[in-house]
Formats: sequence, structure tokens, C-alpha cells
Amino acid sequence: MNPLQEILENTTIDSWARHFRRSPVQLNKRHESDAELIQLAGDSDNCLAVTIDTVAEEITLGMYKDPYTMGWVTVMASLSDLAAVGADPVGLLIAVSMQPNVDQSYVDGVARGMEDACRKHGVFILGGDTNEAPTTSLTACAIGMVPRQRALSRRGCKPGDHVFMTGVAGIGNALGLVRLAGYPDEYFTEELYRPTAALKQGCALREIATCCMDTSDGVLTTLDQLMRINSLGFEIDCDWNQILTPAVLELCKLTGTPEWMMAAGPHGEFELIFTVPPSRVRAIQDMFDSNAWPLIRIGTVQETCKLSLVLSSGRRIVADMAPLRNLLQTVRGDLRQYLVQFREIGKSWGAE
Amino acid sequence: MNPLQEILENTTIDSWARHFRRSPVQLNKRHESDAELIQLAGDSDNCLAVTIDTVAEEITLGMYKDPYTMGWVTVMASLSDLAAVGADPVGLLIAVSMQPNVDQSYVDGVARGMEDACRKHGVFILGGDTNEAPTTSLTACAIGMVPRQRALSRRGCKPGDHVFMTGVAGIGNALGLVRLAGYPDEYFTEELYRPTAALKQGCALREIATCCMDTSDGVLTTLDQLMRINSLGFEIDCDWNQILTPAVLELCKLTGTPEWMMAAGPHGEFELIFTVPPSRVRAIQDMFDSNAWPLIRIGTVQETCKLSLVLSSGRRIVADMAPLRNLLQTVRGDLRQYLVQFREIGKSWGAE
Repeated sequence: MNPLQEILENTTIDSWARHFRRSPVQLNKRHESDAELIQLAGDSDNCLAVTIDTVAEEITLGMYKDPYTMGWVTVMASLSDLAAVGADPVGLLIAVSMQPNVDQSYVDGVARGMEDACRKHGVFILGGDTNEAPTTSLTACAIGMVPRQRALSRRGCKPGDHVFMTGVAGIGNALGLVRLAGYPDEYFTEELYRPTAALKQGCALREIATCCMDTSDGVLTTLDQLMRINSLGFEIDCDWNQILTPAVLELCKLTGTPEWMMAAGPHGEFELIFTVPPSRVRAIQDMFDSNAWPLIRIGTVQETCKLSLVLSSGRRIVADMAPLRNLLQTVRGDLRQYLVQFREIGKSWGAE
Repeated sequence: MNPLQEILENTTIDSWARHFRRSPVQLNKRHESDAELIQLAGDSDNCLAVTIDTVAEEITLGMYKDPYTMGWVTVMASLSDLAAVGADPVGLLIAVSMQPNVDQSYVDGVARGMEDACRKHGVFILGGDTNEAPTTSLTACAIGMVPRQRALSRRGCKPGDHVFMTGVAGIGNALGLVRLAGYPDEYFTEELYRPTAALKQGCALREIATCCMDTSDGVLTTLDQLMRINSLGFEIDCDWNQILTPAVLELCKLTGTPEWMMAAGPHGEFELIFTVPPSRVRAIQDMFDSNAWPLIRIGTVQETCKLSLVLSSGRRIVADMAPLRNLLQTVRGDLRQYLVQFREIGKSWGAE
């Protein structure tokens, strides 16, 4: 079996895609790129990067209580897909569905979150569509341009490549844990969840990174997907204190949650994980240093198709992400069961 | 008051837009174009046309029972926006939200409807996103290209211009009436509602049409919006037998529904309504003839900001569309009341 097909999300995408012909002007392959890369007639140097993303489950599940967060994340999620292919943003379209009787303050909050996320990156909303629906659903479509020969993709790393991350992670899963476990909001407030897209870093990584993907589904899910696409493994050997945000480490301490869970959960942020051949590591480090961009080396690409990591105890384990990535479907959306089973899977890895 | 602001849909768009800065590369003004027109760096001849559209209310209200219709309309609605600016399609992105437990046949129906609509126009789905939600919501984002100086817009007609439509209309409102009034499905079956986008006609109208907009919100709403944007009026003087599809005329006869309602309702199709100066009328007629495209002349642009039309009785009335366009909000979504009030508004025009 194709290792991608062990993951239900991938088979869902495939089951949709089998109905559709592939465009002759599409440059990327399915699953292999965070955004679609499209050749434009009359421009042989550049291609269009386009992506669409809906934020709905996070809202209906109560993960985001503040409308500002909903708007912010909607914009950032789609900009982050552009970052992961190294594209310069052209602009965004948004489609908004809400109950007809929502407060104006709710609408304003969503809009301010969207606009602030745009301003953060000097990007503009070009247009949109509003609709009525029983629950809030926010869709953004981001459009960008990237030099055709230099676009980043999820495929291409080689054994021995170094694995990097553009910044500390875990804030998405920290918020998720607080909501799911019913911890008080103060344990990890929603305002701490303001992930930004690594757009400048994505552009700077063109032609240098051998593969790249954002952490929107969590750090380990990203690594697992890259592993399946490249048929290679990752040995993650970074200290958790370097991978996770201080507020996330604090939450782990406060609640007795093991650190690996903050990397293993499915609610991520928008850092980029990318690989670089040993010969280019120095160049990358210099470039990130000179721009004062954080850069975290988290491990190495391995020949064997395994994802291994070191726990805070110092013990190295192999994380089989398939049961975890399929867990929400396995428990049929039962979130209490989800949390219980999550730790059971950790135990099966020897992580608990 | 700006006449656009008498319409709640326009003020909703404005209330969103006031939160957002306008992009410096955006060529169209708000409300004045079916798709957004964006200048691309490095290409001074062409611009990008982009649009996003969600199909949700029609599904939750039970207007579409067949998943195939849902998929078909989602794709066509966004392609039609490209048609109305004269753009050549590049491709589509789709975002799909459905209940987690829907039948595979439902998913397949939606996907087949999308793909068939794409094939009809030689267009491809480039990518998408799938989500879980309590109700089905389908979003398409269409991307196209149009020669910058030749894009069509909703603004620009002059008194004396002739008003044309690319084909017979009314199928959207016929289906809407059958569902709302609870008539048997056979009175107007859902398979009769397979509107197509007038993409070729849109491209052919570049530089010739003085304004253009699609009939997705119904014929009279389209004319009303064009009237408000251009601060001019329309005298519609076409025979209903020429404006409405035979099956729609049949439904009117069968149910005693006056023909004007099939043009006045908000559930349209994807014909283009466009205006042409008298000097270019012959050229347009020849062009449409030589391509065997239907062409219906429906009236003339007038100095006075009024929308007048001739009933089947031969009587000319002035249709004040504002109360009708705001009606769904006025009755707070009560569809029984909607139908009652709809005819009351017609009476106030002298149409009943």
C-alpha cells in the first residue's frame, strides 16, 4: 500500500480527486505541495500559487471562542500555504457563513482578525462572499506568485539532510488541550494563539530547501506526511525546550502533560518545517541570522521510513502517527474518547 | 442616499469592506464587477480575474435535493462571474463542508456535478479542502485572465444603449417556486435546472458591451443593481415568451403564476445581461448569429433611474425592486411569508 493511503485524510482527498481530471497547466502533484502551482499563459518565468482553506470545525468544537481568532486563523492558514511553496502573496478572497442573527460585534471581531492578519503581512483582501448558515464557517483563498523553477514542494529531501523549523511550536495544541480537557482558560489564553505565516522565510528558502511544509496540522503530522511523501524517515533529536513555546512548556508543567503531545496533536500553527542538504546548512543559518529570524534545527532525514523522537526523559521512541492521525474518525468525533485514546497511542509508542 | 445602499445585500458587503483596506493592485471598484480584477506584477497586458462563491442557503432550504445540482451550481456560479468580466478561466479551487456521516453516493453526486460543469467549459479543478459541518456548504473560487484594457464591468452604459441577454431565463425561480409553494416536483424537475455560464459570450463581448452582469440573482435584480450602479434606468419591453424558458412558461400556466415573478425572484441562472451602444448592435447580432449563440434584445437604457417592464397583459409598470430584494431579511427568513409578501409587492407595482 502507498504509505499516504494509511491516512484517512489523504484517502478522502484521493476519493474526491478521482472524480476530477488533472489540469494540464498544473505543475504540482497531488499531496506534494501546500498550494497548487499553475502555469499562466504568457509568463514562462512565474507561476501562480493558489490555495483554499476553511476554518469550521475549530469553531463548532468551541476551540476558538473569540471571533478575532477565527478571522485571524482563516487568513493566516491560507497565507501559510503560500509560504510553504515560497510564493509572494497577491491577495485573498474570503467566503463567510454565519447565522443571520449574529451580533455586529461578532462580525466586526471576525473582520478585524482577518484584516489584522493581512496587515501583519502587507496583504489585502480582494473580495468575498457572505452567506447564512447554522454555524460559522470561514473560507479563505490565497493567491500568490512564485518563480516557476524555484517553487518549494513537499518532495525532494535526501537522507542526511538537516531538518529545520522556522520557530517554536505547540501553541495550537496547547489551546486544543485546554479546550478538550476543560482546563481553565487562564492555563493558556486564546490570545496566545496568534500564529503567523512564515512568508518571508518561505521566499528566502526557494531553491535551497529540499522540501517544505507548514505545521498547520501539528509538528509530528507534518513530519509524518513528509515521511510518507518522500519514503524516507526523520530522526528528531531536538530538546523540547527549543521546539515548544515557553507558554506551552508552562502548560505542560501545570497539567502534567508530556511535551510530545504538544507536537503530536493535530491543531498546529504556521511554522515551516524544511530540509536542507548539509552543504547548505551554513548558508541557511547565516541568512536566518542576518534577518534575525528564529531557526531551530530539529533533526536529520533518515533512509528508513520511520519517525523517531527523543522524549524529555531522554528515551528515543518511534512514533507511528497513523492511528493518531486517524483518531478523530476512529472515535467518531467523541472528544472525550479522543483524549483517552490519544494517550493510549502514546503508551503504545513507549511514550507514557 | 447612495441608491446601492437601499439594498441590504449591498450594505452587508459594505459593512464587511469597511474593515479592509483596498489593494493597490485591484483594478475594479466595489460592487462594479462580478469578479475582482487584479494587476499582476510583470504582466501589463493581462490581469487576473478572481471570484469566490458559496452555495449553502439553497441546500439548507431544500431548494436542491440532488447532490449533482449542488456541485453543478457551485462550479457554474463562479465561472459565470468570470464570464461577466470577459475572462478566460484558468481553473477552480473548491472547499467542501458536509456532515461526517453522509453517504458516499452523496459525495459522489456533488463531485460529479462539479466535474461535469467543469467539462462543459473545458475547465479544471486545481485543488480544494474538505471539512465537516452540520450542513452542506460548497465554495468555489474561480481564477481567470482577461486583457487588462478589455475587461467588462457593471458600469458604463449610456442612455439609448440596447439591453441584451445571452439566453432565456427563469429556470432558477421556477425551481424556487416549486420548492417554496410545495408544488409537486414534476411541475418543474430539478434536472431542468442546469444553468451554464456564458463564458464564450463574455470573452466575445470584451470592449463591445458597455456594461455586463450575470443573472445569478434573477433578471430583475440584475437590472436593478445595474440601474443603481449606473444611475440610469431600464425600459424592458421584451415579450415574456422570449425572455422565459418554455418549461418556465409552462409552469406559470399550470400554477397561475404571473410571468413577471419568474424574472423578479432572487434565484437566477447564469445568463449575461449586457448593454451595447446603438452603433454596435448590428455587430453584436452578427457575431452571436455566426456562433449560433442565442441573443435576446430585452430593452433600452433610459435617462431616468427607473426599471419599467411590460406585463403579459400589455400594461407597463415600474418595478421598485428594493422591497423585494430586501424581503428575505424583512420576513426574517419565513418562507411562507416571503411568498405572500412577494405578491403583495407585485400588487403595489400594479402587477397583480
